[in-house]
Amino acid sequence: MQHNLQDTISLLARTPAALNALLRDLSETWTLRNEGGETWSAFDIVGHLIHGERTDWMPRARMILQFGEARTFEPFDRWGQERESKGKSLAQLLDEFGRLRSENLNELRGLNLRPQDLEKRGRHPALGVVTLSQLLATWAAHDLTHLHQISRVMAHQYREAVGPWTKFLGVLQCAGHSSP
Amino acid sequence: MQHNLQDTISLLARTPAALNALLRDLSETWTLRNEGGETWSAFDIVGHLIHGERTDWMPRARMILQFGEARTFEPFDRWGQERESKGKSLAQLLDEFGRLRSENLNELRGLNLRPQDLEKRGRHPALGVVTLSQLLATWAAHDLTHLHQISRVMAHQYREAVGPWTKFLGVLQCAGHSSP
Repeated sequence: MQHNLQDTISLLARTPAALNALLRDLSETWTLRNEGGETWSAFDIVGHLIHGERTDWMPRARMILQFGEARTFEPFDRWGQERESKGKSLAQLLDEFGRLRSENLNELRGLNLRPQDLEKRGRHPALGVVTLSQLLATWAAHDLTHLHQISRVMAHQYREAVGPWTKFLGVLQCAGHSSP
Repeated sequence: MQHNLQDTISLLARTPAALNALLRDLSETWTLRNEGGETWSAFDIVGHLIHGERTDWMPRARMILQFGEARTFEPFDRWGQERESKGKSLAQLLDEFGRLRSENLNELRGLNLRPQDLEKRGRHPALGVVTLSQLLATWAAHDLTHLHQISRVMAHQYREAVGPWTKFLGVLQCAGHSSP
């Protein structure tokens, strides 16, 4: 399937409300526990999404439009959410994610991107040449990868509680597929 | 982590709103496409959740409380959503899921289950003896397994569109972990 900008925007617009409906006022059993060790809780993941809104998606889109391949994106700090989340409640993070996403989508819509704009190229520090179209599709797929992760982290909390049903529950077989 | 009935209910109560926020009025590109072959789309998965509300969770809970291990649960029809979904829109399915879940949780709350009730045992046609506690924990984890699946099925639609980012997106490495 080809990338469709309207489909991307419509998904990106829904993620904050979906996470809000799932997580707001849910007990900390579900939202603050992780999968052990240095893994992330749902709380950490919302912080990571906020950090992406600030430093990754639209800054990179602007860089492609202004500088093309001449300037390499800043590397994304995958632990940047510690700064975003410190001292905040999950409710505050959900509000902040919703506000930043809304501002970023307003900016994106205001760019009135044409098909030829979507083919413009930029330079990723690890992946090399990428297009604006690929960047925006990845923004949407990145929401889905973290929804996938949140459902897995939460299900992990009931790994023992489900007893013999564990073998019928796909999410409990998921090893996490961490990026390299 | 032990099973906690209030945590289970609070998660179960949120899933319909979370799916509604994610899926309602989203383009059919995201909601009707599957992962190929006989796999399920987001639309199919919501139908499956409806079928579970009607035939699986509360009927089995009632059977444990009334008959214990003396009567074996009806096998769950994992293709039962075809009957539930036929001729309906996704918006209708989301409404129906919300209504049925709400009715089922009202019934569950009305049972005023005590800790000793949660230890009552029933008989699963494939798994053998299970407890009411395990059944209710599985109801919640089953929501999460399908949220995990929905995020994966949707991300699959952008497998090509993300270009070289595919290797950084865990959800695109997920093979599905189908139950046996």
